[in-house]
Formats: sequence, structure tokens, C-alpha cells
Amino acid sequence: MSKKWVYLFKEGNASQKSLLGGKGANLSEMININLPVPPGLTVTTEACTEFYRQGKKLSDEIISQIEENLTLLEEQTGKKFGDENNPLLVSVRSGAAVSMPGMMDTILNLGLTDIAVEGMAKKTGNTRFAYDSYRRFIQMFGDVVLSIPKYKFDHALENIKEKNNYKFDTELTTEDLKTIVQRFKRIYRDETKTEFPQEPEKQLLMAVEAVFRSWNNARAITYRNLYDIPHSIGTAVNVQSMVFGNMGDTSGTGVAFTRNPSTGEKKVFGEFLMNAQGEDVVAGIRTPLTIDKLNEVMPEIYAQFIETANILEQHYRDMQDIEFTIEQGKLYMLQTRSGKRTTEAALRAAVEMVEEGLISKEEAVMRIEPKSLDQLLHPRFDADDLKNATAIAVGLPASPGAATGKIYFTAEESVAASLRGEATILVRKETSPEDIEGMNTSKGILTSRGGMTSHAAVVARGMGKCCVAGCETVYVDEIKKTMVVGDLTLTEGDYISLDGSTGNVYQGSIKTVEPAISGAFGKLMEWADEFRKLGIRTNADTPKDASAAIKFGAEGIGLCRTEHMFFEESRIFSVRKMIISDNVTQREEALKEILPMQKNDFKQLYKIMGPRPATIRLLDPPLHEFIPHDEEDIIELSKEMHVPISKLKDIIQSLQEFNPMLGHRGCRLAITYPEIARMQARAIIEAAIEVSSEENIDIVPEIMVPLVGKKEELEVLRELIIETAEKVKEEKNSDLKYLIGTMIEIPRACVTSDEIAQYADFYSFGTNDLTQMTFGYSRDDAGKFISAYKEVGILEVDPFQSIDQVGVGKLVEMSVKLGKQVKPNMHMGVCGEHGGDPASIEFFHKTGLSYVSCSPFRVPVARLSAAQAAIKNK
Amino acid sequence: MSKKWVYLFKEGNASQKSLLGGKGANLSEMININLPVPPGLTVTTEACTEFYRQGKKLSDEIISQIEENLTLLEEQTGKKFGDENNPLLVSVRSGAAVSMPGMMDTILNLGLTDIAVEGMAKKTGNTRFAYDSYRRFIQMFGDVVLSIPKYKFDHALENIKEKNNYKFDTELTTEDLKTIVQRFKRIYRDETKTEFPQEPEKQLLMAVEAVFRSWNNARAITYRNLYDIPHSIGTAVNVQSMVFGNMGDTSGTGVAFTRNPSTGEKKVFGEFLMNAQGEDVVAGIRTPLTIDKLNEVMPEIYAQFIETANILEQHYRDMQDIEFTIEQGKLYMLQTRSGKRTTEAALRAAVEMVEEGLISKEEAVMRIEPKSLDQLLHPRFDADDLKNATAIAVGLPASPGAATGKIYFTAEESVAASLRGEATILVRKETSPEDIEGMNTSKGILTSRGGMTSHAAVVARGMGKCCVAGCETVYVDEIKKTMVVGDLTLTEGDYISLDGSTGNVYQGSIKTVEPAISGAFGKLMEWADEFRKLGIRTNADTPKDASAAIKFGAEGIGLCRTEHMFFEESRIFSVRKMIISDNVTQREEALKEILPMQKNDFKQLYKIMGPRPATIRLLDPPLHEFIPHDEEDIIELSKEMHVPISKLKDIIQSLQEFNPMLGHRGCRLAITYPEIARMQARAIIEAAIEVSSEENIDIVPEIMVPLVGKKEELEVLRELIIETAEKVKEEKNSDLKYLIGTMIEIPRACVTSDEIAQYADFYSFGTNDLTQMTFGYSRDDAGKFISAYKEVGILEVDPFQSIDQVGVGKLVEMSVKLGKQVKPNMHMGVCGEHGGDPASIEFFHKTGLSYVSCSPFRVPVARLSAAQAAIKNK
Repeated sequence: MSKKWVYLFKEGNASQKSLLGGKGANLSEMININLPVPPGLTVTTEACTEFYRQGKKLSDEIISQIEENLTLLEEQTGKKFGDENNPLLVSVRSGAAVSMPGMMDTILNLGLTDIAVEGMAKKTGNTRFAYDSYRRFIQMFGDVVLSIPKYKFDHALENIKEKNNYKFDTELTTEDLKTIVQRFKRIYRDETKTEFPQEPEKQLLMAVEAVFRSWNNARAITYRNLYDIPHSIGTAVNVQSMVFGNMGDTSGTGVAFTRNPSTGEKKVFGEFLMNAQGEDVVAGIRTPLTIDKLNEVMPEIYAQFIETANILEQHYRDMQDIEFTIEQGKLYMLQTRSGKRTTEAALRAAVEMVEEGLISKEEAVMRIEPKSLDQLLHPRFDADDLKNATAIAVGLPASPGAATGKIYFTAEESVAASLRGEATILVRKETSPEDIEGMNTSKGILTSRGGMTSHAAVVARGMGKCCVAGCETVYVDEIKKTMVVGDLTLTEGDYISLDGSTGNVYQGSIKTVEPAISGAFGKLMEWADEFRKLGIRTNADTPKDASAAIKFGAEGIGLCRTEHMFFEESRIFSVRKMIISDNVTQREEALKEILPMQKNDFKQLYKIMGPRPATIRLLDPPLHEFIPHDEEDIIELSKEMHVPISKLKDIIQSLQEFNPMLGHRGCRLAITYPEIARMQARAIIEAAIEVSSEENIDIVPEIMVPLVGKKEELEVLRELIIETAEKVKEEKNSDLKYLIGTMIEIPRACVTSDEIAQYADFYSFGTNDLTQMTFGYSRDDAGKFISAYKEVGILEVDPFQSIDQVGVGKLVEMSVKLGKQVKPNMHMGVCGEHGGDPASIEFFHKTGLSYVSCSPFRVPVARLSAAQAAIKNK
Repeated sequence: MSKKWVYLFKEGNASQKSLLGGKGANLSEMININLPVPPGLTVTTEACTEFYRQGKKLSDEIISQIEENLTLLEEQTGKKFGDENNPLLVSVRSGAAVSMPGMMDTILNLGLTDIAVEGMAKKTGNTRFAYDSYRRFIQMFGDVVLSIPKYKFDHALENIKEKNNYKFDTELTTEDLKTIVQRFKRIYRDETKTEFPQEPEKQLLMAVEAVFRSWNNARAITYRNLYDIPHSIGTAVNVQSMVFGNMGDTSGTGVAFTRNPSTGEKKVFGEFLMNAQGEDVVAGIRTPLTIDKLNEVMPEIYAQFIETANILEQHYRDMQDIEFTIEQGKLYMLQTRSGKRTTEAALRAAVEMVEEGLISKEEAVMRIEPKSLDQLLHPRFDADDLKNATAIAVGLPASPGAATGKIYFTAEESVAASLRGEATILVRKETSPEDIEGMNTSKGILTSRGGMTSHAAVVARGMGKCCVAGCETVYVDEIKKTMVVGDLTLTEGDYISLDGSTGNVYQGSIKTVEPAISGAFGKLMEWADEFRKLGIRTNADTPKDASAAIKFGAEGIGLCRTEHMFFEESRIFSVRKMIISDNVTQREEALKEILPMQKNDFKQLYKIMGPRPATIRLLDPPLHEFIPHDEEDIIELSKEMHVPISKLKDIIQSLQEFNPMLGHRGCRLAITYPEIARMQARAIIEAAIEVSSEENIDIVPEIMVPLVGKKEELEVLRELIIETAEKVKEEKNSDLKYLIGTMIEIPRACVTSDEIAQYADFYSFGTNDLTQMTFGYSRDDAGKFISAYKEVGILEVDPFQSIDQVGVGKLVEMSVKLGKQVKPNMHMGVCGEHGGDPASIEFFHKTGLSYVSCSPFRVPVARLSAAQAAIKNK
């Protein structure tokens, strides 16, 4: 039996999208539920694939099936192709399984010939209308199927109008139109060296081939590459008998959404034009009316349309985007599909559909794209105020949100200004760890250098702070304290505004609107929490981060990086004193100064977190990060510290490393300088004991040892921490419980996880560093070749943004498995940017982790992603 | 039933070393084979452990077993402890399972008391001898058991001698000796507040306890830590009835080896003293005679001794180290053990024992410590000439061998001098990649900075070149061209000599002797080759390396690093031109200049290797390694290249990386600059085709892609290489076969090896980089904390020296397994320093690799290690 290449609409249904394309399947479905759809047929996507297999030719079998089905269509409509009395006219449209712009345009009125046009005139009693349709069809066919430049037809038309002194097309007479048809056919012949085809069947086959060819035009290929759509799936072609919205005052055409696509409000939303075809609505020459006006023009049709829209939404159980035409008082549905909407609308519609009983909570949760929540979680510019703003430059949208403030060119001055109560924007060539406090107190960060993974970008995203990075048209002079863009020079204290979601930089201030989780958003988050199995924690180093994260629903802290506290201006002096110590005693002296400050940090955090768990990581970065490197700063430090410059330089020299990423950091510091780890353990335990008693809660501190690669490292440090903790407990007469765990972020730790688990109460996968070491990519340096790799197709996504499940993920799975062999109930989470990435979160869910931890502003994204992962993998 | 804590010698045997200690077990064994051994008993190592368990006390049970066995010993000897006519005297010696210096000294003549001394006098008819023995015993017992300072006894003795104007001990009369005994007992009382014990049983128990205590003295603990001997195993105590070598002219004592321990010659080798005790031989007051002289003194005893030595060697099937005593014409054996020997002796003895039928070839192969071959594989100083040399400094023994030459302070001048035919020593503060050629042409390298893993050390070991590194007492002034050591200043052209095995630096020149594999060494290597399953290849970048390796038995090249060829002075200019190119066309121009040079390199290599396989790796290091970094060199380069300094600096800046180890290198270069890979592929294929035809052999080039982490990388580059190779083959009308494989050196490659194998004809594990990434250790930086880790016991060995089997090894195993799932017969080897480490080689054998590749001078070590691995794991 031969394959079925062609389906009448009435033979298909909505489940056949991959065969009939989205448009075709939905037209079939509408017929199945008895909605008024002009009959038609669909040539399948498989026919497209076959077309290419045959060297861009329609096989005889496909051609004969098209012809057979045309005959059936003629029977259905009672019209005949090319008939001199009642000709069948059709539209031809492409329709792939996935909505895909960039492919062939629609052809209307196919079937018109010198004979059929007369038949159409007779049948409609409107000769002018028939010839107007004919000349439009010739132009469209020539343009779309044979690529005859459109302007050639337009010139001919303008010619006639000029000759007759017409201003509008409507002034053309029937005779004019007949002349134009002659001219157009001549153009067609001159361009193609063939006559304009007078057999509708031939017109149709040419149109079908054109649609298939358009599947591989440059725009379509680019689009598919961009959105990861396979090139092999092909497109279908829909051939539908014409209905005319331009057949007089009882005809019309329109588009509508079953709900408001901006707000989600449950009210049909759309517009229409009477006596018009679809292209007139799009062209924008006449202003369409809002859909409710249809109630005044044709109340019965309006009622029928509202009823139909309702049926469609009920049937598809989702907001629909509908096209319709009214022909001489009769309503026809031409298309329905799931409607595109804003995140706000998506949330409201989903929540209300649950309340209406239309969909389940699971479905509601599954309908929201987690990444789309991002736009709701950062300050935004007030839409009205934004209209008056002038964009002066565009950089990389490095960290989303909107910010307005006075520009400052050093971290110190930015901090000072913040303390005076000013809103500030930190403007730097590029940032370094010493700028952390300046970044933290500013409203936004602008850098002229660096990419999406530069220090500024990474830290800003971590802080949930607006950042525009690598804005190369801005010249930043940190000495003169100016930023120059073209002719414009801004100086310290001038206002600018940044949009971290677009990369736009504006001159002057713009009002911003703060984000909040409430209404439908809040409701949907509640439901997500009901479904998800993964806990959601946050990476928070400061009380401010912690508060923000709790507001967004974080259930604990998964990673508190204690080193960020070391950079604060008030304590960096003591930290540096510790680093340049000659011996343990000196170092311990300096650490004694730091202890009360660290304790206070932790107390503040514990107060905000209350009984929620908080994992605090011991010092991680190499010590040289805390020491200045340029001449001037060294001289200053030498004065402050009363230490000779030469000695300082020696120390800086001795701390230098070729590959700091793989150097003396993490637990390696704690082992070579145990006094640092002891100080930190003491600060954590003292803080927990004091806050537990002050607030009358039971805090169970989680102390995390970073960068463990061998079980012996954790064994030694576990002993050291326990010794310190027990001493503090004895001093304070406390029976505090505490946990000691480790980051799993080194490949060796993954493959020897069964050994390490023996000394760990919990694990937290540090997938940032694990990705660096598993791939051998330095995050600071890999930008260059990662983008090259994406271009060549070696990498599909940046493995620092979404976890590489095949490689890095395999190590994580191995580690979980080995660890659970030893401790089946061990608590295992993940911190690092992957904790906020939906695809990664689904992977972590499947891997059996207990929680993910992400930056505060990713918490809602993570909650939703975790819920979707749980539902998908039930 | 109670445990047996004490064994009579006649109850034990050689297999009980862990219970009876080495000495005790061998004494038992000698009795079993009817050799004349004075009877005795052994208190077991378990008794030692029990002693510590009891809080450093002998349990009643142990004491009573000692006493019971003493009684049996009295019966055996017919003597009685403390007897007034025929007293039993014993020696007490420690004896652990593992030979271990640093423990308790021997106590002789235990059992002497005021009564027994008279009995001894009666029995021997020599009162003076009896009292002389008594005073020696008191001193030894006081010193060894109770730590009474020896000098106190010596003073008392000297006192009597002075008073009597004696010059020698032999002048002391019996009465003098009796007085001395009184004085010694008084010293004992004054020091210990107790009387010198007059019950032999008590003396014995005190001595046994002292031996057990000495197990945990500081020296012993240090020794065990150093040699990885468990602290828990304890020592045994041997109590043996005394025989006297100092009972007149028919008595004597000696030590001997069954073969010459320096040369391995099969001839008993040793020395003896008549009328002396063991300590006299050691003390060196009298000069002992060589063992063959015994034939003149006591021919029958000599014959018996030679016979006994022969029996022992036949019985133990190994060269023995024997102690003996002759008491009044009767021979007694006091100890036998496997004799320590030089590598040369070990080889000769092993080979000759096989020829004698004493041991099998397998045993011979197993007897040689692979690492010991090292001393035979490098030039050595002529022993006679060395005697006259003056050492002026000691640095780290960074790369073994001996070298003599004129000093030069820059690579350029060293190269120039070598071209003039001078033997040179390159002296630098530290070396950098730019010094490679200077290092290569010099005889040896001396640096004043850097450790065992500094650039100089690593590269020198790779080259098999003598290097003394981090010689901090030498001040190197590269500007003035002087090296200063204390008062001595040496200038350019002065001679020095280096011993890379000891770190010694000598002033002046010393003759050197070149290594060769011949004689017994050669024979043993042949046997090793019969047993081993692993192939042995070499890492060789130059024809010189390749020749050396073949001489040492390499079967192919496992790693040829093409970048080393880039540094040669004649081509670095073209390489730099390539790097600073603005576009592909410029770069291709520069590459065109490099192509013929690279081709010539490969042709030379292929000519030397003949039909042996050679794996050539594409460019690996980041490009910035080829560009100078200091101001002066940049200015010079700018002139040479006619490129503005600012542009050069921009390029250098843009190439800079935070973590070059994880940066833009390896196949990442080949993908971003495909023209480089194309040039290299062309050079390799052209060279192979030309040499195949010139030499009429079939070369199958193996082209290796470094640093692959994703299968897509190899997929893309494989295609590129094939395309180039096929083009060359067409041009040259050749049907050359070639293989394309990859380094497995990134953790991700290991865990996705099933994917990568699809595009690889072979694998070579790059365990250096794999170790760096699996541990997260930068080899350039980790020195500091690796040594700290070894001290704390976190690392047992440096994982860069011996592969970490648990972690890195697990990834290798996984990769082998996954790769063989796809290609069961794929050829897999290992390159990197682990390829020359015996423990690592055994691991690679077990993992099922096809070959190991190591530096030329490790090839014999690898051959032997591979054979031992095969024999052990049969």
C-alpha cells in the first residue's frame, strides 16, 4: 500500500502536529468539533522530506494524491477548479510542526485564471472584485513562487494610476483592473519566459513546491539553528478553500486572543476590520476596531464568535490566538493556536484557569517558562518615564534589572556616596575583588571591558544587581573620573540609568519599579512548592542577600562565602595584617581582631534566617586576592602597616601563582594555616550559640569545607573543627548541635566520594569549579574559545550556564551514588550558578539531590523549575 | 590455652619473620638445616605489642614463659644462669621483621654476676678474661638498659690506667680489672640508686624491656616514618648463649658476603679478626684480614666456613650477609640475612644465579629494584678523579647524572659555545621555556632557585640531562655573568662539575664515564623483555632523544611534542610572526616558512625510528609561551619584526591568561587556528611519505590531538587532518596509512570515553595533566602545599611522581573500559612522567594498557617494571 501524503482537513486531528504541521492539525481539530472551517487539505511534512529526497521534486505519487484530494475538495465545496461559473479558489500556506517565521508567505485566491475570473465575477456578481482579486493573485504568485521582484508589478500599477490621476487604488475601474491583469501577465512572461499558468492544478503544484523549497531558505535555516529545531522535520502545506472578508459590508476579518495577552484578564481581546482581507489588518492602512465593537456591527456574529472562542479555549484548555473571517454574514475560523503572552499574563491566565476548573494545578505549573520569571524579579523602569529617556550606549546585558544613580569611578567613592544616602552607579573599566563592597552598595555597575562571564558580570548576577558589562563605546577614565561616549562627557555625580536586561545605558535618571511576588505569581509559586521535591536554598553572603532571598521563598542558605566579608573596608586591614604575618603568633593576633567581626556577620545572618538552615563555607580564595597588586596601593599599604615596601613585595611575589584556580586555596589554606579555620569555626559556633539563646531557637550550623579532593583533608579539618567547637561549647556551657560537610567540586572528590562521605555530614556540589576542572576550562579565560566552540557547534550551551549532563553530570551522579552507599540518607545539595538553571535543576532532581542553592533573584525560577522537574518525572 | 610468647630457636623457621623478627627466624632456620648456631630463644614481636598494651610492662605470662624457656636453654647448653662453675652467658639483641637501624644495641655477656664471674674464671681457666668480660658487661648494661652515660665508666677506667701509667687496656692486670668492676658497680649504684642486679633472670628481663622500649625511641620512629614501616608491628628479642671469639688464638670473629657486594662476583667476600669479639671488628682499632687469609690461619675452619656459606646461599637462593664466631677452634654462625649490594652487583649476581641454576629468570627479574637502575643510566664521575674534587655547594638533586663544562649564564651564549665545540654548563637563576635550546645543548644545568618540580628540573629530567636546582648558596648574577659562592667568584668560561644524583657542585672539571647497557645488565633486560606484556615507548622530541631511547630499548615514540621544535632559535622568529599575525592569510604565510622546518624535524625522527611507531602530538601550549614578556625582549622583537611596540604589547596582553593551564591551548588552538593544525598534519604526512620511500619502509604516522574533552573536538579535527592528509597523498601519489588519536588528559574525556573512542584510532593517557585537573593542583604552584600535605600525612607520595591509583587511576580505568566497549582492540598507552614510575607501571599493566612511554633515561626502568608487573600479576 502506498503512503498517505495528503489529508483532507476532516481526516486529521490535533495530535498529528508532526505530520500535518501545527496549523493543519488545528484546522482538522476545529472541523472535528464542528466549528465552521472552510474545507481544505494538507500535504504532509513527510511529503516535504520526500521532496528533498527526490532532489527537490514532487513524486508522481504525491502529485496524484494531491489531485485525487482536490477532486474530493471540489465535491465538498460544490465548486470546481477553473470553472467558468463557480470556480474553486484556495489559499496556500506553509505550516511546520513548530511555529517558524521566515518561511513562505501566504498565497491567496489561487485558482484564478482567465476563465475562472469570469466565473468568479458571475458567481459574486462583482466583476471589479473578481479582477482585483486576479491581479493581486498574479502579483503574489509571481513574487512568492517565482521571485519576480514586487516593484515591477507596483510600477505597472502606479503607471495606470498616474495616467488617470488616481490617488487611491479604490479609484481603479473594472476596465483599469483588466488592463492591469494584462500588464501583470506580460511582466510574468518577460520575467519567466513562460505564460502565466492557466491550469489551477499546475498553479497549485508550483505553489506546493515553493513552500517546500522555502523550508531551506537562508532565513529559515538561521532560525532553526538559533532555536535548535531539527532541519530534518520539514513543513506541511495547507490548501484551503477561500472565503472572502472583503465581499462587502457583511464581510470582515479579524484576529483575537481568548484572554488579554498582556495582563491575562479573562476577556476576549482582539480587533477586526469589515470588508477587508487579512492582509489589510496587518498592513495598517485602515485602523481596526476592538473586538467588542463587533457586537454593535453584527451582534449575532459577535455572539457566535465569543461562543466559538470559548469552545476553543475549553477544548484546548489554553489561551487561544484565533484568526477568523466573515463572508457575507457567515463566520469562518481560519486558524487557532496557543496564544503568546507576557509572563504576567501567563501567570494570571494559568491561575485563573485552575480556579475555573479548566486545568489542574500541575498543568498551570507546567505552563510557565521558568526563565520568563526573571523579568518580574528585578526592578524595572517605569514605562512612562522610560519613553522620555535617551539611550547613549549599549553594552552586554550582564545582569538583569534597572538602576538609576550618580556615577562614581572607584569603589571607595561609591561606598562613601552610598553612606551619604546617594543612589550610585559604579563605573569601572573592569572590576576586581577589591571592588566588591563598592558593587554591593551601588544600584548598578557599568564596565567598559569584559564579557558575560567577567568578574563584574558574575558577581553582579550573584548579587542580583543590575550590570551592563563590556560597553566598549564608553571610554572610562578612572583617573580623570570621566566617562566619554562620543561627544558626551559625564563626570562624577552625573546621573545615568542602566537596563541590565537589554544592555542599554541612558543619560539622566529614570523612575524604577520594585519587584514583588504577589497575586497570581504568589499563588503559582505556592502550587510549585506543593509539587517540588527539591529544597530551594540561596547563595547569600550578606544579611541583605539573605533577606531578599527569604522574600523570594528561599528555605535556607546553601552557600555563604565568608571571604566576601573579608573585603569590607573596616576589616581588610586586619585581613592583610594576617596575611603578611611572619609566624603563627602574629597571624593569630590578627585573627583575633577579625574574630568578633566575623562572629557579628554570622549573628546577623542567623537572626535573619531564624530556624532555617545555613551552610557557611570556610575561606576559599587564595590569599593573594586580598592583597593589592599595583605599585601605588602597595606603597599605601606599606605606610598603613608599617612594613617595608620590599617586604610587602616579597610576600606578594611569594603568593603569586601561575594557575591560582588550581593553587593554594580552599581547604589547602585551612590545612597550611589551621589558625584561620579555627578562628572561623569559633566565630560560627559562638554566633550560633548566642543567637540560639537570644532568639530562643535551635540553630544547627552547617560548616562547609571547600575544595576537598582527598578524604584525609576532610578528616584532618573535621577533627580541627570539632576540637574548636567543643571547646567553645564548653566555654559557653552549650549543647549546640552542628554539622560538618564539604563542597564536592574536584573531580577526584567525585570518584572517591565513598571515602569522603565517611567524614562528611553533608555534601554541596560546587558545579562551577567542578565544571572548570572536568572540562579543563578556566572560567576567566575560556570566554574566547567557548564562543568559538559554540559557533563551530562543539558546544551547544555554555557549560557554566547549564550543567553538562554527559560529563560533569556523570561525575555528580557517580559521587551521589558512591556517597549514598556509605550514608544512604546524606543531605546533598548544589550551589553555584547551575542551581538557578531550569535544565540543570531537572537534572539535579533526577540525580536525587536534596536541594539546589542559587542567587536570591533566581529563587523563584528554581522553585518553579524544581516543581516542573518533579511533575515531569513523576 | 595461653599464647606462645617465647620460642626456642629450634622451634622456629625462616617463614616466621613477622613473629620472630628477621634475625630470629634466620637463626631458627640455620638450626633447622643443621648449621652450628649457639642455642637460644626468641621473645616474639607479639610480646612487644603486648608489652605496649600493658602500659610498657611485661605480663606475668610472658615473664613465666621466658623463665620456662630459659630452663630449657640451660638444659640444651648444660650450663646454668649464675652458676659458680659453669654459668650460662647470653647475648641479647633486638630483631624486627624489617631490618631497622636506630634501635637497641647488642648486650653481650649477660648473666655475669659476682658469682658467675668466678664460675667463668674457673671454666675458662682465665680469671683476667672473666673480669674483663664482667666490666664490659656492667658498662654495656648500664649504658644500654639504664642510659648511664658511657663516659662515666670510661673516666673510671682511664683513671686506673693513668695511675698505673698504662697506655693500653691490655696492660690492665686481673687485680686492676677487679677494682674496675667494683668502681663500675659503684657508678651503677650512684646513678640508679639500686645495686647492680646479681640475679641473671632479672638482668634478662630488664634487657628485654629495654629492647621493647627502644622500639619507640625517637630515632626508630623517625626511621619507620621515613620508610613507611608500620609502627604497630613491634620487635622481637633474641637471647642467645654466648660464644667467645676472644678466647685466644684459636678464637676469632668475622663478617662475610657470599658474593662480592660491589661487583657481584661469585667469591666469598669478607673479613675477620682472630682473638676478638664482634665489636672489635666494628670499632676499627685492629685492622681485620680478608676472609681468604683464614685459609692460612685455620684451613679446616676456613673450608667449613666456605661450605657453610655455600649451603646458606643455596638454601636461601640469594646472596647472604653472614656473621660468625670461632670459639677455641669451633665455628659458630651468629646471623645470616640477604646481603645489601650495589645495582651492578645485584645484576651480576642475579644473572649468574640463573646460570648456576640457583634461581629462575623470573626470580632474577624480580630481584632488581627498578629505580636502582637509574644510577647506571647516566654519566658518572670517574671514581678516582672525583677523589681530588672540591665540592663548593649542594643544591637539589633535580635530575641525575654527572656533567663537567664551562659555565655560561644565558642560553644564547651557551648554545654559541656548544657550537664552538665546548662542553658547557648553563647557570641561571631559574630557567624558562626560552632557555630550552640552551639547556639542550649544555651538559648540565645549575639553577639557584626553584624546587624539584621547577621548570629546570622537569625539563632536564625529560631530557635526561644532569641538573642541580635551587642551589641557594650560589648567587647568580646574569648581568655581570658571575656566580658567587662564599668568597669564590666564578666567571663565564670557568669549569664546574655537577652531580645531579647528589646535588653536589664541584669547582673544576672531573672526568665522566658514559652509561651503557651490556653484560649482566643487558642480559637481565632481555629476560625482562621476555616477560613483560606492556610495550615500552619513549617521549622524544629530538633525534638525539630518540637515538638515546633506542639505545636503551625503546620500541617506539609515545609522545613527540612538536612545540619543543618551535623554540629553536632558527625558527622562533617565524613562529612569532605567525602568532602576531592579524589575519589568517598572514598566519598562513608564516606557517609556510615553518612547514619545511617541521617536515625536516619529522623526517629526521622517522629516519632514526625506522619502522618503529611514533606518535606526534599537535601543538599544545598556549601561544603566549612563545612570546617574550620582558620589556627589553619586546623592544628587540619589535625591531626584528618591524612591528610597533604598542601593537606587540597589545597582542601579549590579549594572550595573557589567568590560568593558562586551563586556557587556550591543546586542541582548542587547533580549532580556533585550524591553519596551524593543517600545517602540522601536512608536515607529518609529507615527512612520512618521503622517508618511507627513501628508506623503503612502511611508516604509519600516528597523529595525536591533545586536550580533547568533548567528542566533537576530535570529530572536527579528525576531519581536518584527514582532509589535509588525503590531499598530500594525492599530491604525492601515495597510499600511506596513518592513524589519528587523542590524548586522554581531561577528566571529562575519561568519563565520556565511549563517545570519544568513536573518533579515535588510539589513546594516550596524559596523566600529568589528568592529575592536575583531577586533583585541582597546578603543578607549577602545588609544590608548597604538596610538601605540607606529605608532612601532615594527607598525601603519601607526590601524585605527579606516582599515579594516584584511587582517584586519577579510577578515571583511567573508567576510560579504558568505556573506550574498549566501543573499540575492543584500541591501542592505548600512557605518556607523562608516570610512564617511568614502577608502581604506576604496574597499575597500567593491570589496567590493560598496551604500552607506557617515558623519557629515554627511564626506558630500562620501565622495561624492568613492566616485567615485574607481568610476573606479579600472572
